[in-house]
Amino acid sequence: MSLHVAKRMVEVQRSLIRGIAEASNKPGIISFANGNPGNETYRPELFAKFVAEGFAEEPLTLCKYGNSLGYEPLRNAIKTYMSERWEIDFTRNEVLITAGGQQTCDYTTKVLLDEGDVIITEEPSFASCYNTFRSYYGTLAGVTLEEDGLNIEELEKAILENPNARIIYVIPNFQNPTGYTYSLEKRKAVYALAKQYNLAIFEDDPYCELRFDGEDIPPIKSFDLDGRVLYGGSFSKTVSPGLRIGFLIFDKELETRITVAKQVTDVHAGMINQYIAYRCMISDFSEHLKRCQDIYKHKRDVMIQQLEEKSPEGLTWNHPEGGLFITITFPEGFDTYDFAFNAIDNGVAVIPGAGFYIDQDKPRNTLRVCYSTSSDEEIIQGIDSLCTYAAKWLSKQQ
Amino acid sequence: MSLHVAKRMVEVQRSLIRGIAEASNKPGIISFANGNPGNETYRPELFAKFVAEGFAEEPLTLCKYGNSLGYEPLRNAIKTYMSERWEIDFTRNEVLITAGGQQTCDYTTKVLLDEGDVIITEEPSFASCYNTFRSYYGTLAGVTLEEDGLNIEELEKAILENPNARIIYVIPNFQNPTGYTYSLEKRKAVYALAKQYNLAIFEDDPYCELRFDGEDIPPIKSFDLDGRVLYGGSFSKTVSPGLRIGFLIFDKELETRITVAKQVTDVHAGMINQYIAYRCMISDFSEHLKRCQDIYKHKRDVMIQQLEEKSPEGLTWNHPEGGLFITITFPEGFDTYDFAFNAIDNGVAVIPGAGFYIDQDKPRNTLRVCYSTSSDEEIIQGIDSLCTYAAKWLSKQQ
Repeated sequence: MSLHVAKRMVEVQRSLIRGIAEASNKPGIISFANGNPGNETYRPELFAKFVAEGFAEEPLTLCKYGNSLGYEPLRNAIKTYMSERWEIDFTRNEVLITAGGQQTCDYTTKVLLDEGDVIITEEPSFASCYNTFRSYYGTLAGVTLEEDGLNIEELEKAILENPNARIIYVIPNFQNPTGYTYSLEKRKAVYALAKQYNLAIFEDDPYCELRFDGEDIPPIKSFDLDGRVLYGGSFSKTVSPGLRIGFLIFDKELETRITVAKQVTDVHAGMINQYIAYRCMISDFSEHLKRCQDIYKHKRDVMIQQLEEKSPEGLTWNHPEGGLFITITFPEGFDTYDFAFNAIDNGVAVIPGAGFYIDQDKPRNTLRVCYSTSSDEEIIQGIDSLCTYAAKWLSKQQ
Repeated sequence: MSLHVAKRMVEVQRSLIRGIAEASNKPGIISFANGNPGNETYRPELFAKFVAEGFAEEPLTLCKYGNSLGYEPLRNAIKTYMSERWEIDFTRNEVLITAGGQQTCDYTTKVLLDEGDVIITEEPSFASCYNTFRSYYGTLAGVTLEEDGLNIEELEKAILENPNARIIYVIPNFQNPTGYTYSLEKRKAVYALAKQYNLAIFEDDPYCELRFDGEDIPPIKSFDLDGRVLYGGSFSKTVSPGLRIGFLIFDKELETRITVAKQVTDVHAGMINQYIAYRCMISDFSEHLKRCQDIYKHKRDVMIQQLEEKSPEGLTWNHPEGGLFITITFPEGFDTYDFAFNAIDNGVAVIPGAGFYIDQDKPRNTLRVCYSTSSDEEIIQGIDSLCTYAAKWLSKQQ
């Protein structure tokens, strides 16, 4: 066969993360590789109860075609929640229910980006979105992500160097992979630059409700007065990723285009899925979130305590105030790529920093370590293995 | 706001169908406008039972992230079914589970089509797929659809006139909007031309299992020996459209690209949704299909009988052997556009043929009439209103 294949799929890069994630499924491996929720946060019995009630009370609504923008009760619940929590103004904005968070990136790109246009992105960042941008022939321009958000000087420089830049891509809370969170000042500075140079912002915020320390910081969307922020939310980290439900908040001016984006791809989000998310939101959602936050705070504490006790000299790490990830940094010049692949043979799976950069082939001295899916015992044993192994590698390198 | 918006969304056309479908929701309107399953084919109690059992037996599988290609038991059930039913060879082919049938079109286009490439399509055909092609900057070239399939002479001419044609788009069974079905000869002729000129075929086959008269005719995919046919299946017409589950069968050579297409859009299909489809397939699927076929055969019979009794002179219609649609043809030169919009005020909603052509603005003398969603009484009353009203319009035009 020699079928013509679209150029766009050639631009997309293999995922370093997937390779390790698959290897980490081997028995006996303790995996800090996958940015998934902890199994103990799922509530399958509750979901089954909701579904039984939904099919009894609204059988036709759940079986038939739904509206492209989504199931009205869920859309309204999200509007109420997001306006009460962050003062987002739904006289100016609308909500689309998506099949998970990744699809908020897909639609944002489909609606805003032409071939050759530039996306300015944090570096490191979530590589799956890099690939979504590439799948629309987008060109990526990286800006250093610091512990309190994008380097603002670099950001302005990148904007000036790329006259066809269209979108600034940010994950402001408990970022994947770093666990970093933007300060309010940096959020405002990013918005001010977007406004000054007429760029859109794609604010990808799946970890927002997983804050377990410190003070809430409002999303950029909450002070967006001219409709340039497209905000991606997700139930994947708080309810269930298998549910595939997320939402995109966007200015009403974009409503027709966003609706058409849905119609030409998958018509509407699954009805049962939307119904479960709706019922979760209107039942004990805040208590459930609190429980998730407590679970992840405990796991972070166990992991950081283990690192403090067992880390060899030369390693540093951050103290995230929420989310699922910690960055472990090795000494300057150390390449974590081979380290991470060999760590699997030593019983622990972590993702090398290189997997989150535009250029995956350049050496990086960081690891993404995810504490959310492991038990206390696994964290203790896994960090022990990781530190023992790191000590060996570091001494070899000297 | 003056955000840059992608060109691709400008190419996409407003849907004539949507406008009438929305108007048809008014109380008192009998709607033959929507190509939806009949409500009596849904089995919400059974779905709820499956979900309860699924969450009890495989709670983590249904809550966690799944594989990009889909839930293995469902993929295997589809492979078994399609190889037993149509001798499709799964040593050469693979299956992706999608969020409904539309998404099989989206991924086929994403993987095969570059900007400016040409899709050769039946005319009339399913306009939502026209828009999917346009959303990738595809150019459409129409070929006349006859009662037994594409006009083969025109097809070869269109291929020769469009050197960058990449895909032939066909709905071989009980086509939307016409209800026409390809003969085996035409299926083979389309495949032979695709092979001769190295084109892909997107075989969109959501109505395949709704045959209630005549003999089965194998899909083009069943005699595809060189992997050029991408076959789109759907559970939307047989199980539930709100479920959003379909499947794409494709040559193994495309597996990496198809997988990446899933990863950059919505990661994987919803787990509960896939589980319901799987349980439907392995329980009483063939009995259920038989029941659906009987329901639609009866409705078609009622509608045709009513047309025979009440139609004014000048109208003709086809006798579909399956599916949901009948085409009513008015005399040459009659434009059904205003007729259809005015019919709503006379209590009946139908879609004018123009909505299924590349150029929606040219007058067409056909109507798409869908019998699947109405009761016997509604069909009788609706066809009565339609015929009375048609008689009035026809006499006015003379």
